[in-house]
Amino acid sequence: MITLHHLENSRSIRIIWVLEELGIEYDLKTYKRLPSGLAPPELKQVDKLGHAPILVDGSTSLSESGAIIEYLVSKYGAGNYTSPDDVFWKHYIEGSLMSFCVFKLVLSISIEKIPVLLRPVMAVVPRMILSQWVEPNLASAINVVENQLSNKQGWLVDGDSRGNPTISDFMLAFSVDVLVYGGRADNLGPGLQSYAQRLHQHPSYVKAIEKAGDYRYQKREN
Amino acid sequence: MITLHHLENSRSIRIIWVLEELGIEYDLKTYKRLPSGLAPPELKQVDKLGHAPILVDGSTSLSESGAIIEYLVSKYGAGNYTSPDDVFWKHYIEGSLMSFCVFKLVLSISIEKIPVLLRPVMAVVPRMILSQWVEPNLASAINVVENQLSNKQGWLVDGDSRGNPTISDFMLAFSVDVLVYGGRADNLGPGLQSYAQRLHQHPSYVKAIEKAGDYRYQKREN
Repeated sequence: MITLHHLENSRSIRIIWVLEELGIEYDLKTYKRLPSGLAPPELKQVDKLGHAPILVDGSTSLSESGAIIEYLVSKYGAGNYTSPDDVFWKHYIEGSLMSFCVFKLVLSISIEKIPVLLRPVMAVVPRMILSQWVEPNLASAINVVENQLSNKQGWLVDGDSRGNPTISDFMLAFSVDVLVYGGRADNLGPGLQSYAQRLHQHPSYVKAIEKAGDYRYQKREN
Repeated sequence: MITLHHLENSRSIRIIWVLEELGIEYDLKTYKRLPSGLAPPELKQVDKLGHAPILVDGSTSLSESGAIIEYLVSKYGAGNYTSPDDVFWKHYIEGSLMSFCVFKLVLSISIEKIPVLLRPVMAVVPRMILSQWVEPNLASAINVVENQLSNKQGWLVDGDSRGNPTISDFMLAFSVDVLVYGGRADNLGPGLQSYAQRLHQHPSYVKAIEKAGDYRYQKREN
């Protein structure tokens, strides 16, 4: 039996999607975040890192979303849900797109926490890092995905031979939600906007969102 | 013919190592960084991202270190240089360990650039992000690798069936060099310290360093 340890409002939504899309039976254990926003200590009892998602399949216990997605597709995908182009995207999305999304989030929240009167001085350096390094890299990463999606009616690398989403889409879904949630939807190009619409109507993704508990990233901010 | 577009002083050292270790013939094009530290614009003529490494193999052009390593091992590794445990480590090292290494580097350099008299005020927020978020996560990521390496005499996941390094080692090498270079060697546990020694004596890695042009990360800082 497979058990997925899932943290609410996190990237582990993607693993629920994979499990639903592949029609795998699983037991879902959902954890709430602490008031601080951090993961609860119970997760450390499952895996020493304490980072969700954690997938337990018999004697195999695995963390890291990318690794779990590859494992599930390879073991239970019957040769589907994959494309040669996944090799690039599965690394690119988590390593480039998501890391700059996270860094932007951390810097933005840190700036917001500075008392307004002190911001002109204390926010100078964080704002400089944002404007000179994070924002250009994030914009460039978003642009790479937008170019790939422009004029596309389907999945990120056109799906597998049966038209199913592939590892590239399983990786991309959470970044799309974070970008839309961050009030950036109007800044996103038409390729990403229409991809987000298709993703949010895809039956197994709808089901994943229903099962995921609290998931703020499908509510629009601002 | 394979061409590797390599940026000096960068993580693309790992691809030179893979090519040397697998005994693949290749043409090496080495690019120097601009005085600002950024990659030179010529790289954008090879790949629109302008990020090294970029591997060109016939009609295939691929960026992202992780993707290139997987591609080379899968196409030219004759079934060697891989282990089931690579699935976790290839994602973990780039996504967790390296991203916190990079965040730390960017925040530290930003703090150093603040005039000394202004640091007590202007460095407060960057230092807080470092101490509350980056450092604990980096320490935790290093610890995961240290635990894996403790009491080990060989490669990160014990190598392939012939004792060769696997994808996990190809991914880890640059992080090890960055940690040692950052003057952190004394803080590293015995597992990582002895791994670094073995890596730096491994013939194909020694050859890779010779070919890589300027590579500051094997000079010890402080």
